[in-house]
Amino acid sequence: MSLAFLDRLLHDDATAKLLGTQTTLDAMLRFELALARASARHGLISDAARLAIEAVGSSFIPDLQKLTEATLKDGVVVPEFVRQLRSVIGDTHEKSVHFGATSQDVIDTALALTLAPVLDLLHLRLTAVDTKLAALQEKFAATPLMGRTRMQAAIPITVGDRLSVWRRPVQRQIETLDSQRRALLILSLAGAAGTAEKFGDTIDAVRRDMATDLGLAVPDFVPHADRARMADFAGWLSLTSGALGKIGQDVALMAQTGIGEIALSGGGKSSAMPHKQNPVRAELLVTLARYNATQLAGMHQALIHEQERSGAAWTLEWMILPDMIEATATALRHAEALLGSVERMGDATVVA
Amino acid sequence: MSLAFLDRLLHDDATAKLLGTQTTLDAMLRFELALARASARHGLISDAARLAIEAVGSSFIPDLQKLTEATLKDGVVVPEFVRQLRSVIGDTHEKSVHFGATSQDVIDTALALTLAPVLDLLHLRLTAVDTKLAALQEKFAATPLMGRTRMQAAIPITVGDRLSVWRRPVQRQIETLDSQRRALLILSLAGAAGTAEKFGDTIDAVRRDMATDLGLAVPDFVPHADRARMADFAGWLSLTSGALGKIGQDVALMAQTGIGEIALSGGGKSSAMPHKQNPVRAELLVTLARYNATQLAGMHQALIHEQERSGAAWTLEWMILPDMIEATATALRHAEALLGSVERMGDATVVA
Amino acid sequence: MSLAFLDRLLHDDATAKLLGTQTTLDAMLRFELALARASARHGLISDAARLAIEAVGSSFIPDLQKLTEATLKDGVVVPEFVRQLRSVIGDTHEKSVHFGATSQDVIDTALALTLAPVLDLLHLRLTAVDTKLAALQEKFAATPLMGRTRMQAAIPITVGDRLSVWRRPVQRQIETLDSQRRALLILSLAGAAGTAEKFGDTIDAVRRDMATDLGLAVPDFVPHADRARMADFAGWLSLTSGALGKIGQDVALMAQTGIGEIALSGGGKSSAMPHKQNPVRAELLVTLARYNATQLAGMHQALIHEQERSGAAWTLEWMILPDMIEATATALRHAEALLGSVERMGDATVVA
Amino acid sequence: MSLAFLDRLLHDDATAKLLGTQTTLDAMLRFELALARASARHGLISDAARLAIEAVGSSFIPDLQKLTEATLKDGVVVPEFVRQLRSVIGDTHEKSVHFGATSQDVIDTALALTLAPVLDLLHLRLTAVDTKLAALQEKFAATPLMGRTRMQAAIPITVGDRLSVWRRPVQRQIETLDSQRRALLILSLAGAAGTAEKFGDTIDAVRRDMATDLGLAVPDFVPHADRARMADFAGWLSLTSGALGKIGQDVALMAQTGIGEIALSGGGKSSAMPHKQNPVRAELLVTLARYNATQLAGMHQALIHEQERSGAAWTLEWMILPDMIEATATALRHAEALLGSVERMGDATVVA
Repeated sequence: MSLAFLDRLLHDDATAKLLGTQTTLDAMLRFELALARASARHGLISDAARLAIEAVGSSFIPDLQKLTEATLKDGVVVPEFVRQLRSVIGDTHEKSVHFGATSQDVIDTALALTLAPVLDLLHLRLTAVDTKLAALQEKFAATPLMGRTRMQAAIPITVGDRLSVWRRPVQRQIETLDSQRRALLILSLAGAAGTAEKFGDTIDAVRRDMATDLGLAVPDFVPHADRARMADFAGWLSLTSGALGKIGQDVALMAQTGIGEIALSGGGKSSAMPHKQNPVRAELLVTLARYNATQLAGMHQALIHEQERSGAAWTLEWMILPDMIEATATALRHAEALLGSVERMGDATVVA
Repeated sequence: MSLAFLDRLLHDDATAKLLGTQTTLDAMLRFELALARASARHGLISDAARLAIEAVGSSFIPDLQKLTEATLKDGVVVPEFVRQLRSVIGDTHEKSVHFGATSQDVIDTALALTLAPVLDLLHLRLTAVDTKLAALQEKFAATPLMGRTRMQAAIPITVGDRLSVWRRPVQRQIETLDSQRRALLILSLAGAAGTAEKFGDTIDAVRRDMATDLGLAVPDFVPHADRARMADFAGWLSLTSGALGKIGQDVALMAQTGIGEIALSGGGKSSAMPHKQNPVRAELLVTLARYNATQLAGMHQALIHEQERSGAAWTLEWMILPDMIEATATALRHAEALLGSVERMGDATVVA
Repeated sequence: MSLAFLDRLLHDDATAKLLGTQTTLDAMLRFELALARASARHGLISDAARLAIEAVGSSFIPDLQKLTEATLKDGVVVPEFVRQLRSVIGDTHEKSVHFGATSQDVIDTALALTLAPVLDLLHLRLTAVDTKLAALQEKFAATPLMGRTRMQAAIPITVGDRLSVWRRPVQRQIETLDSQRRALLILSLAGAAGTAEKFGDTIDAVRRDMATDLGLAVPDFVPHADRARMADFAGWLSLTSGALGKIGQDVALMAQTGIGEIALSGGGKSSAMPHKQNPVRAELLVTLARYNATQLAGMHQALIHEQERSGAAWTLEWMILPDMIEATATALRHAEALLGSVERMGDATVVA
Repeated sequence: MSLAFLDRLLHDDATAKLLGTQTTLDAMLRFELALARASARHGLISDAARLAIEAVGSSFIPDLQKLTEATLKDGVVVPEFVRQLRSVIGDTHEKSVHFGATSQDVIDTALALTLAPVLDLLHLRLTAVDTKLAALQEKFAATPLMGRTRMQAAIPITVGDRLSVWRRPVQRQIETLDSQRRALLILSLAGAAGTAEKFGDTIDAVRRDMATDLGLAVPDFVPHADRARMADFAGWLSLTSGALGKIGQDVALMAQTGIGEIALSGGGKSSAMPHKQNPVRAELLVTLARYNATQLAGMHQALIHEQERSGAAWTLEWMILPDMIEATATALRHAEALLGSVERMGDATVVA
């Protein structure tokens, strides 16, 4: 829930769209189509059924109102989604739709599919932040700056010294994004209780084909109740926003009246004091870092995922993870703009 | 950020509306109008200015797009809101708009104004949950039930014993809502740095009049950087969802196949197993309780509100508090429905 | 777990003793003695049994090694504690020891008993902090200070303005301590599953007598699985450390080299830079506030206390609450010392 | 702060010793000795100074009482530790002690040194848990078990299916321990403000020699204010305890009276109900997982580590990380014992 006028301050349109309702429904449909193709190839459903599902799939538009009502009842959107899809496909082939799959297969795979471009976006933005940091190093690396520890002047350093400390964690997050990609972009196809009981000997082949079709990897574990990848990704997000929060905190301290170690263009105005230049984006980086740090605890509470599927723990992920992703993407956007607005850094009066 | 089909599962329309963009903008305008009236009465602005502000105020429709853009720059919507309001009022009286106030006065007072009906809604829903619990006590209090400690059968109790433990915290939250009301429904009018420097000796009278006008109380402290009431309200919200989370956890355990200590109508379906009856709302109560418990940490991090106003800490409240309120309202709605769906409780075969 | 050389930095001897092993074992014994007296008075155990228990009780020294071993097995110290107590009392009256009570009655009541002097200590320290703040107001209230919002100079205020914002939350915590006292200092006597099944009609009288004996109140609810008072107390602790954290953050910012709005005596040294004066206690107040804010989430997770007693949730309280209490007591000690070390506040060059 | 009788329930002697006061002081001394050797080799201090430091170092016993007092004042133990060390070495060479280093170099390197055997211990215990899981698979893999989703019976699976879901995350934590080792076991030698300003061109060589001497790696970044490795390790710890918490939650649910899908030897007793067999260690795994999930938020708050060194954020790590390590080690110990106590798993009456 958010106020519309906070949209650009605390939210991110691009991310919201990539993780939005339509994108998610499309990804769910992609799962069902890929399942139909792989199942047909391995003789689990007829080729006629596959053709019927593919024919309908491309034009299937679910009834959102009914999905919403049914989700309240079922706790997950998939049963009604499948019901609607079966209904348009008709009696003859309806049993072939969603063959052998369970709700969690659809939702978790759809999440993987929607995350792929999200990770690309995060990569792009991390790189943009890194580029801005490189540009600042180019311009200001040699300028003296008072090194400060425990919020007291310590010894003179250079702007370049501080920028290096800002930059390394950003680069590290770029480097570690690949392992997140490998962990997250996986197929879930494990059936009602994780045993893929409907597939018999074909399960490996079906999974391999579906994964290829969807551009995902096949995990070497049953992903339903093993949520480490989600908690670990949340940690990665918080490491990212934390790296930016450190930059934001430093900038806010450097920009203090009476310190003046940085000059920013375009700071925020005050309604009472038109003369002020507030380092709004620097503060926001702190806010977003503290937000993600807070949320991370909830994602780790959701590791205690009982039995073969926990409605409670799984739903907790739905409440927290998208907001963490958006907070991170928003922080990256603000970081890029903030660093791009730096007009001056350092304090030429500092003598080493 | 949320998927549309989760709207009824994880969200609450009524709360979203009460805390929404339009309601908030209306409340901000109410602040400015009440300020103009009180300032005019005490000679701080002219009566002509007051009349001009009142005349325009009733029909003022801010430009949301511009508000959104400016909020990104200023970190808060108020400067642009005031600029637009001044612009429609015209040069003659523009200085009289927002006289002596600061952004935080407007936002925090607007929050108080929007919270008033939210607290009423929470009260109504708490009472509805309490009524359902009373009805269950009426029906099932005497039915035996196995008391369970450390997840093991202990000694026989009755359904009434367990219902009492569920009910008392709900009633306590009804009782303590009044003190939340007193703490939250207050006027903020303290100016640029908390000293109300533009008001001179009139400040007490202006505050009293504005508060009366708006149906709020005048606090005996400067509310800008003293955020205890927000953190404490967040605690109240989490105590509420926690009380319901305990009920949800108990219901989910009672409903287990093989335990069967409760029968619910209308449980959720599975996409793979149409025979299942999932206790979806019971699980949701656990989810929402764990969500709020997680968020609470962030609201308490925001207590460390530096100097006269912290952009970083204040904005963190904006990110967390509305979602906690909505989670609580949603939990109350699900609790009422869950308790209303109980068809049977207890285990008649238990012998004391 | 803590390093010995951090004892005075991060710990508090007085609190550690008040909540320590011996104090807790003493309180557990007080519970058993008061239970014996009340049970005998109402005919539940014989007077001879009471005399035997009282005779032994005053000199009973449990075998700590055996308690520790048994606690690992039982999850709680009480069964072995009672076994040892019964063993010294002998066969004749052993059944009269711990009559009708359960482990949670003993532990929770013992906690209430140990908390009573802890709350007194917190009250004393809060008052000491308030006194220091009053003294600073006496000395520096009129000195000018630059008011700062969003970490930028706003308009001139006085030291008194800022001190008022520091002081009010401290006073509020003093005021609200009474309601914590009422909520926390209660008797738990509810038996195996909360129904006090062994006491019959005498339960009200037994509770009343025991409570009087122990200086506690009788709650109007079954306290075993209703943990709101614990979570709410944790919130109060975090509000307290949060109020001090705000002071600490402000002091650290005021003490910055180049700002110099406060002068402190006796700041910490650096191993590399002997000239530095680090505002160590100011930083610690921030640390302890962020620590408690973090912990609070765990105490609220423990609200989801399933059935008649949750081993998992109850034990989580044991892990978190004592550390929160100690962090708060430590913060109060540091706050008093920090405020007592202020030699100068404000900036005489600021002109309103 | 903890009660002695909880020592074996909630604590771990082995970990406490590895991270204890003596071990830490020894590691600090090892840092100073290695620094003296490397500095002498590269001509930064005289060989006579090195010999004097080495001669004294082996027998240096710091005055703990004075360390404790000074830590309160300085916020860190190092200045007084170095003062004492210099004092025993004498005037001639005192300047050569701690040459070019800062407190954080000593503390962070000492932590790395103490963590090395801690990681070995965690590896050993993870392997032990994995071995127990393998043994259970050996015995019970083929036994039927009712698969449960959303706390309702779903379809029959086997004990082996569930054990696989328990085991994979344990194995993953074994696999990922190596990357933690690489990230954590690093030398910190960066001087007062991260620029190693006293070392000139010799810094790379000095670092390389010291690292070799201490069995650590040289990081490619300034580690003072870049705390990602600490937050990430905390995440690894919580992933570990979370994996065990899932096992614990499942065991507690399987052990329920009326479900009986598992039989454990040696469950805990109740003081009121001697017949009960409480699954104490299973509950503890849940407790410890929820504890670590809670703490993780605080470690990520500490990422916002301002400027060249943050007293507040660094100290927050000291408060949280050791307790997370100990909670993890304790959980591993309980998990091994719990899994070793399984006498029966599954439900032979379930028919696929």
